[in-house]
Amino acid sequence: MAIDSSTSEPKRLLFNAFSMNCVSHIQHGLWGRDDTRQTEYLSLEPWLDLARILEAGCFDALFLADVVGVYDNYRGGADTSIREAMQIPVNDPSLLIPAMATVTEHLGFAFTSSILAEHPFAFARRVSTLDHLTRGRIAWNIVTSYLPSAAQNLGFTDLPLHDDRYDRGDDYLEVVRKLWESSWEDDAVVKRPGCYAEPSKVHKIDHVGPYYTVPGPHLCEPSPQRTPVLFQAGSSDRGREFAARHAECVFLAANRRSLPDIVADTRRRAASYGRNPDDLKFFLGISPIVGGTEAEAKSKEADLREQLSIEGGLAHMSGSVGADLGILDLDRPLADFDFNSMTGIIKALADTAPDKQWTMGDLARRQMSGQFMTGTPEQLADRLEDLANRGADGFNLVYTTTPGTFVDFIDGVAPVLRARGLMQSTYREGTLRDKLFGHRRPRHRLAGAGTAAD
Amino acid sequence: MAIDSSTSEPKRLLFNAFSMNCVSHIQHGLWGRDDTRQTEYLSLEPWLDLARILEAGCFDALFLADVVGVYDNYRGGADTSIREAMQIPVNDPSLLIPAMATVTEHLGFAFTSSILAEHPFAFARRVSTLDHLTRGRIAWNIVTSYLPSAAQNLGFTDLPLHDDRYDRGDDYLEVVRKLWESSWEDDAVVKRPGCYAEPSKVHKIDHVGPYYTVPGPHLCEPSPQRTPVLFQAGSSDRGREFAARHAECVFLAANRRSLPDIVADTRRRAASYGRNPDDLKFFLGISPIVGGTEAEAKSKEADLREQLSIEGGLAHMSGSVGADLGILDLDRPLADFDFNSMTGIIKALADTAPDKQWTMGDLARRQMSGQFMTGTPEQLADRLEDLANRGADGFNLVYTTTPGTFVDFIDGVAPVLRARGLMQSTYREGTLRDKLFGHRRPRHRLAGAGTAAD
Repeated sequence: MAIDSSTSEPKRLLFNAFSMNCVSHIQHGLWGRDDTRQTEYLSLEPWLDLARILEAGCFDALFLADVVGVYDNYRGGADTSIREAMQIPVNDPSLLIPAMATVTEHLGFAFTSSILAEHPFAFARRVSTLDHLTRGRIAWNIVTSYLPSAAQNLGFTDLPLHDDRYDRGDDYLEVVRKLWESSWEDDAVVKRPGCYAEPSKVHKIDHVGPYYTVPGPHLCEPSPQRTPVLFQAGSSDRGREFAARHAECVFLAANRRSLPDIVADTRRRAASYGRNPDDLKFFLGISPIVGGTEAEAKSKEADLREQLSIEGGLAHMSGSVGADLGILDLDRPLADFDFNSMTGIIKALADTAPDKQWTMGDLARRQMSGQFMTGTPEQLADRLEDLANRGADGFNLVYTTTPGTFVDFIDGVAPVLRARGLMQSTYREGTLRDKLFGHRRPRHRLAGAGTAAD
Repeated sequence: MAIDSSTSEPKRLLFNAFSMNCVSHIQHGLWGRDDTRQTEYLSLEPWLDLARILEAGCFDALFLADVVGVYDNYRGGADTSIREAMQIPVNDPSLLIPAMATVTEHLGFAFTSSILAEHPFAFARRVSTLDHLTRGRIAWNIVTSYLPSAAQNLGFTDLPLHDDRYDRGDDYLEVVRKLWESSWEDDAVVKRPGCYAEPSKVHKIDHVGPYYTVPGPHLCEPSPQRTPVLFQAGSSDRGREFAARHAECVFLAANRRSLPDIVADTRRRAASYGRNPDDLKFFLGISPIVGGTEAEAKSKEADLREQLSIEGGLAHMSGSVGADLGILDLDRPLADFDFNSMTGIIKALADTAPDKQWTMGDLARRQMSGQFMTGTPEQLADRLEDLANRGADGFNLVYTTTPGTFVDFIDGVAPVLRARGLMQSTYREGTLRDKLFGHRRPRHRLAGAGTAAD
């Protein structure tokens, strides 16, 4: 049984539904099925229904991915992505949240926003507004963008170098943290006759950084969480450093074997920034396929697997690794190629079976189906528990069909997890941060940055 | 009776509720009253209620103002603004719309966004997302920002010069119009097995302008309106030119006397861009105070007027004109000052009674109360009809209390207007543009700009 070492109680695992405001998110080729609502993404209804389902199932949050660009390097262009609806068209995720907030009370909403997509002064206001409207249920997944098309369209002549993006990210984080945490004191808003807020308690931030100059003050009064819960997804060395410095929740590309080391390494780095290493929660992506029997689950998987679009997977992967995989012979072993520049995904995939003679075609399939977790509810609960024992605190559930994947999990696996004390059956009170980390957690502070409100 | 010259029928007037995602919008000093919900702006509830009220009252739209900066030049700082909650704190308006869309079917949503606040590539996606989620009910109020604090916080070292902002606006409009209108052809999305969209029908825009370089393609598939209904509020010479070129609806700072000339001049300019001059609709701001008798209405007005905050009004006006009015003797006649740099508001206000010896104190009161329209429902209907005969097509209703101002108008004045054929009692079908301009209006085209989808 997974045990929380600090309390010697079963470790309560965290569950997010992973989705995106688009047709095809991760498992490409499946949008045309009768049992998925992916093509309804333009309407409010499937999102309102999904939010209701997740809250009834006591999920912690809906995690919305995003890109502000096109995967346009496979076979030299965007044709495959457009044909497969592979993350294009893609609508703004943050605008779904206020609508879903009208039909829920506890469900958290994590959304992705790249530091390249919006100026930190305007972005800080967007987040504070969402945190107010949801009464403190917002998380921000910080990304630095990897698609050159994003940077080109947003006024950067080309994608800033990888490490430079993280430096920019550090500066961006400093701006938004100052706006959220130190501009308005806790007791600035008094609502006395003739005085809504005390001017002496609203401060400029006067930020002058290498990338951003922002005098402030913040435009919004303090929201329930002030700073949203901070997610970060990055596995590179610089990405881990960034996560260790800023993130509260880390979305990992890891497998059973690599997980413990990555977790330990990131916690170590967090400690070096003066943070409590236990303040980080690690999430793994999984795509559960549940059956009443193992055979039934396997038959479901086979049915899905047959429809997966290898073309969609290769276009996705080409964008992610920054190289056109369409020019390669898909059947040649990976060992024949030089993948120095393609860290991350390819390495992580190949690493799942280091003795195998991987080909690029294998990898494309693997990228989509590698997160499949197939079996009976008991088998899935066993595997989740094993991953928890190896360092996972929670899971982002990648759908094959939506909301089917989530419904199957809630109906089948959640009761087994609850019987083992591993999944909540009611929500804790408080903000999303309180719910994730324990009741009435004091508000998160930027490592090393005091605030005027201290 | 106001007659539509093209149909010889009574002219159907348009009505928007004018509000802002903040505590105190125009009539400052009133937020503490028991009969207004201004201090609830952080919650969804008052917005959902307002949307329901407006749709039941057959209003055309809710018009949400915005600033992305602080009025910080009165008496040398932002203290008065903060104390009076004078447009600070101010939350993001666009995030209210998806929530309000869940409880309405026809009501339009106009929101303000400055061309300085968001990159056009990201902004175009935000608007398309909103237009999808509302099924075509979005309008954009284009502003170029007048608060130096907005520009400074958004990475412009100081506010670009007035005319330069409009040049940037022209370029910004070109980018977003190309993304909305010419990137995805009408029949690009086919949803055939294995082909969600036809790559050959999704085009890059390859925009290279003086301010923005945006290759595209647009990230979103075509929304019901593609381009949102375009509002513009600007009375300067360059502002009128901008409106004549781009806007479909113009929000005027005008009075009864100046109205006909401004309307005629702007229509003339529109014609010079090859547009049909009747394609523009002109809106005036009014703040109705309705009573069962004239005496009752006047007593309501007196009660409100007494609570108006002159300090709030002066802080607002100082920001709007770009000069600290706090250093002036409020009782000295305006004639003693040099207001060459303060066109617009001051001129428009003083112009309402050119023979009067105006003081700055008068003006501050006037800025807030100048839009008061006080009387019985019949009296108000007469005055609205008179303004319609002088060129107004519609009205933005400025609240003194919210939702009280709107409720009073809907309960009292709307029935009288309907009896005269001047206000709709049911909604037309179609998008907001269809509803405002007549059924099934072909989609709006940028003057002089053909599209690949033509």
